Amino acid sequence: MLLELFSPSVQHALDIVGIFVFAISGALLAVRKNFDVFGIAVLAEVTALGGGLFRDLVIGAVPPAAFTDLGYFLTPLLAALLVFFLHPQVERTQFAVNVFDAAGLGLFCVTGTTKAYDHGLGLTASATLGLATAVGGGVLRDIIANEVPSLVRWDRDLYAVPAVVGAAIVALSIRFEVLNGITTALAVVTAFVLRLLALRYHWRAPRAWNRRSSAEEPAEEKATA
Amino acid sequence: MLLELFSPSVQHALDIVGIFVFAISGALLAVRKNFDVFGIAVLAEVTALGGGLFRDLVIGAVPPAAFTDLGYFLTPLLAALLVFFLHPQVERTQFAVNVFDAAGLGLFCVTGTTKAYDHGLGLTASATLGLATAVGGGVLRDIIANEVPSLVRWDRDLYAVPAVVGAAIVALSIRFEVLNGITTALAVVTAFVLRLLALRYHWRAPRAWNRRSSAEEPAEEKATA
Amino acid sequence: MLLELFSPSVQHALDIVGIFVFAISGALLAVRKNFDVFGIAVLAEVTALGGGLFRDLVIGAVPPAAFTDLGYFLTPLLAALLVFFLHPQVERTQFAVNVFDAAGLGLFCVTGTTKAYDHGLGLTASATLGLATAVGGGVLRDIIANEVPSLVRWDRDLYAVPAVVGAAIVALSIRFEVLNGITTALAVVTAFVLRLLALRYHWRAPRAWNRRSSAEEPAEEKATA
Repeated sequence: MLLELFSPSVQHALDIVGIFVFAISGALLAVRKNFDVFGIAVLAEVTALGGGLFRDLVIGAVPPAAFTDLGYFLTPLLAALLVFFLHPQVERTQFAVNVFDAAGLGLFCVTGTTKAYDHGLGLTASATLGLATAVGGGVLRDIIANEVPSLVRWDRDLYAVPAVVGAAIVALSIRFEVLNGITTALAVVTAFVLRLLALRYHWRAPRAWNRRSSAEEPAEEKATA
Repeated sequence: MLLELFSPSVQHALDIVGIFVFAISGALLAVRKNFDVFGIAVLAEVTALGGGLFRDLVIGAVPPAAFTDLGYFLTPLLAALLVFFLHPQVERTQFAVNVFDAAGLGLFCVTGTTKAYDHGLGLTASATLGLATAVGGGVLRDIIANEVPSLVRWDRDLYAVPAVVGAAIVALSIRFEVLNGITTALAVVTAFVLRLLALRYHWRAPRAWNRRSSAEEPAEEKATA
Repeated sequence: MLLELFSPSVQHALDIVGIFVFAISGALLAVRKNFDVFGIAVLAEVTALGGGLFRDLVIGAVPPAAFTDLGYFLTPLLAALLVFFLHPQVERTQFAVNVFDAAGLGLFCVTGTTKAYDHGLGLTASATLGLATAVGGGVLRDIIANEVPSLVRWDRDLYAVPAVVGAAIVALSIRFEVLNGITTALAVVTAFVLRLLALRYHWRAPRAWNRRSSAEEPAEEKATA
């Protein structure tokens, strides 16, 4: 119902864009980790579809969209091919990749929240699942690449907070019955802009207060470098 | 049906206690791994709710309790806040944390087994899923923290065995139709006490017989330290 | 329906064989990683049942076969016991393990594809899920063992491609309505033989074109050794 706010074709096009840019980020990490062409495709698929797959399993929407829509499956393969042949050029456009990734983050946190609410979850749970949709693929990407997820590292620019804000705007709009095309677009754009600002100004989240020692840090840095 | 053995409010209170202590253990690991405040919250949530989430997906109880009960979601955030501001004090109470974690282990293996059986699984499968409920969150915690799960490491005190015993007592009680408040409490307490004894006397499980070489050990220790 | 191609008992026997050999590979890695006996059992179960569990969650076949068929659960424990007591002998038969693992790969990619199609997925999605059934357990095994999954590493012999070919043969056979005992067997055998040839001749997949530097390689090798 809520999803009717976007016409199906617009919604689908936005999803495909988000999937594509997330897949690019997965494929680039695979190249950096020295994976073979198959590993590049796997990491592209997992990064692009992992968050939505988790959301669909949780709300009981099986089989998940990732397995019923051929476009969702083929888009990451296209991204993987592109990176396979052109990765130096793609990496040179890291700024563009970051911008698209921020757009994917904004789109996924909003559509994830509305889809969860449409399936009967409460507002807090819907916003949480919207967040999980947006960041889940990246966490799976990092786990398969055997790295500490960027999501939880203190030395990475804010990633989850923009998605939390976007999902919260949607949840509040539902709560106050003002969810429409404008508030939805506002949520997407807010998350998108916040992420870009976090990248630009290196906004980071604080670590625990009164950390007793930083002696381990160099070792950790090395281990996760 | 079986779950009626506990009154709903008692059951819920016990669940919240188990969730809280598991969340503390996740948040403490996040601080040790130098994660930011958001990473602390993520690891608290995953540790506390991961096992039950897996159980609910397997038995088809969607949306899982973790997403329908606001208390389940907010409790780990409270634990994360507590650790964020007070972690040196919390770590100093490591003994208390261990005792609560053992209590969570005992509770979750028992409620996990009964919930799985209520959803039509066989006795062995129910006990297995009870075990998975109790230890699953900790495994996810360690995977996200990029460590070898404590669960499978030989140099950690017995953790799964107490949960296996607790789940087995429940399964046998069902089999012989003597499951009631007393046998349920017996299962919880047995798992709890076994875990405390394992901690106190450093009980460990054996490694494979005839290990040919221990040459790799120092390297492995370093890698997983 | 399609699964009727195999008589239930033949199908079940083949499944058990595949589960057994995958469990052996998981248990052997656990021994190499110095896990305790419980860790050996966990890794055997996860490797053997993880792929099918993922498939069943995605197609909504809950509770998954791994939790409804006692034989599926007990077989990995048997494999774990065998490796626990006899691992030097088992490792000496690495060739035999590889052959059985290749057989498991061939069987699982084919039965995974047919089961997914029986549950209403499209041909591409079914083949993808067949692939995930075949390789999913191994990926989970490597994640728990805190290693980069063999599946995506460039320095491992082709593993996924044989499964892709087997799954594709099944999907094409369904498409052209020629799926029967013969084409099914052909798919299994093709995947099996391709995997053996990949092992024999060290077939590997290419890495990304124009990799700019190999300076990181020694460090990476060490990190994932």
